[in-house]
Amino acid sequence: MPYVKIEVTREGVTREQKQQLIKGVTDLITSTLNKDPHLTHVVIQEIDLDDWGYAGEQVSVLREKGITAEKK
Amino acid sequence: MPYVKIEVTREGVTREQKQQLIKGVTDLITSTLNKDPHLTHVVIQEIDLDDWGYAGEQVSVLREKGITAEKK
Amino acid sequence: MPYVKIEVTREGVTREQKQQLIKGVTDLITSTLNKDPHLTHVVIQEIDLDDWGYAGEQVSVLREKGITAEKK
Amino acid sequence: MPYVKIEVTREGVTREQKQQLIKGVTDLITSTLNKDPHLTHVVIQEIDLDDWGYAGEQVSVLREKGITAEKK
Amino acid sequence: MPYVKIEVTREGVTREQKQQLIKGVTDLITSTLNKDPHLTHVVIQEIDLDDWGYAGEQVSVLREKGITAEKK
Amino acid sequence: MPYVKIEVTREGVTREQKQQLIKGVTDLITSTLNKDPHLTHVVIQEIDLDDWGYAGEQVSVLREKGITAEKK
Repeated sequence: MPYVKIEVTREGVTREQKQQLIKGVTDLITSTLNKDPHLTHVVIQEIDLDDWGYAGEQVSVLREKGITAEKK
Repeated sequence: MPYVKIEVTREGVTREQKQQLIKGVTDLITSTLNKDPHLTHVVIQEIDLDDWGYAGEQVSVLREKGITAEKK
Repeated sequence: MPYVKIEVTREGVTREQKQQLIKGVTDLITSTLNKDPHLTHVVIQEIDLDDWGYAGEQVSVLREKGITAEKK
Repeated sequence: MPYVKIEVTREGVTREQKQQLIKGVTDLITSTLNKDPHLTHVVIQEIDLDDWGYAGEQVSVLREKGITAEKK
Repeated sequence: MPYVKIEVTREGVTREQKQQLIKGVTDLITSTLNKDPHLTHVVIQEIDLDDWGYAGEQVSVLREKGITAEKK
Repeated sequence: MPYVKIEVTREGVTREQKQQLIKGVTDLITSTLNKDPHLTHVVIQEIDLDDWGYAGEQVSVLREKGITAEKK
């Protein structure tokens, strides 16, 4: 009986990426914990940049300063 | 001091249904745990069908295939 | 696809009360939204009294002062 | 490694107020727990008035009756 | 800035399995969304069997009846 | 109607620190949003070090390597 919530900033996540996250997390839980996937629910929640704070600053402000969350 | 979060797919839940959920959950907690209803908060969160995954698939895809969540 | 989280202070909730909450919430969602109960998950989380704050005070402190959450 | 979620009714919270909440919570955690702010994430979630229930009623109904959440 | 919460019934999840879940989810998010892993936090929460309800019944009761969550 | 959840690693947070967090968050919300503190609930949840992942590693492993979350 797993339930997974993924919160991520709203920055153009596509439908295909969401499907990859859902499939990937469900497969991971199935292979790691041997759970029936019909008992696994995954919920993705996109958060507006004004609503996510990191190190005391809104992500919208960080982005305006050119600071991204991308992997280098 | 109860707090309840109800997450449900966004599929036409009406204002009246939301009120029924809020009233029903609050009454249930009052009768079961004898809690003052003024200390009970209920939050409903509707989730887009692309953002809810079940058994590794987006619910939007399941709905396109004709698979519903309805009670038979 | 509903998921429900119930957070309540840890003050002697019995196994039977938990079962009543689970049954009651699931029945409420089934009757209100016509959802298949096999898609409804309910999670109860008990919170220690030091970890719940109300009006700026720990509930453990409120209880020491004789302030309860009981319905009058 | 703190993560903070703030849920509040959607009633005109401004960008500046959100920044104050993010800055204030991050500073509070830094000063109280001595945590590196680069490990503190704060997420604000606004909830529609139909989706928040208090004492068994939708907040939208309470507001129509003239009942506010303002500090007197 | 992703945050992931994994809720799973407390049924002997080992430290190694938790590490696999954390590593797997973080890698999935890095590869799917190209996020810096230093901004990804994953929290696992185990839930007692009395506290998880499925289809209106406590999982502890389902287990006593021999109903498992295992993949066949 | 605000509800705040604070998740933090379980590393010796004292009762006094919890009270400071509860008081500080409630005061912040009262002063920023002008909310009646009797409608503000704060829940603190401590997470075991094996259950929190950062950058793909369990915090328990990071701590064994001497990596802390302290502000320098």
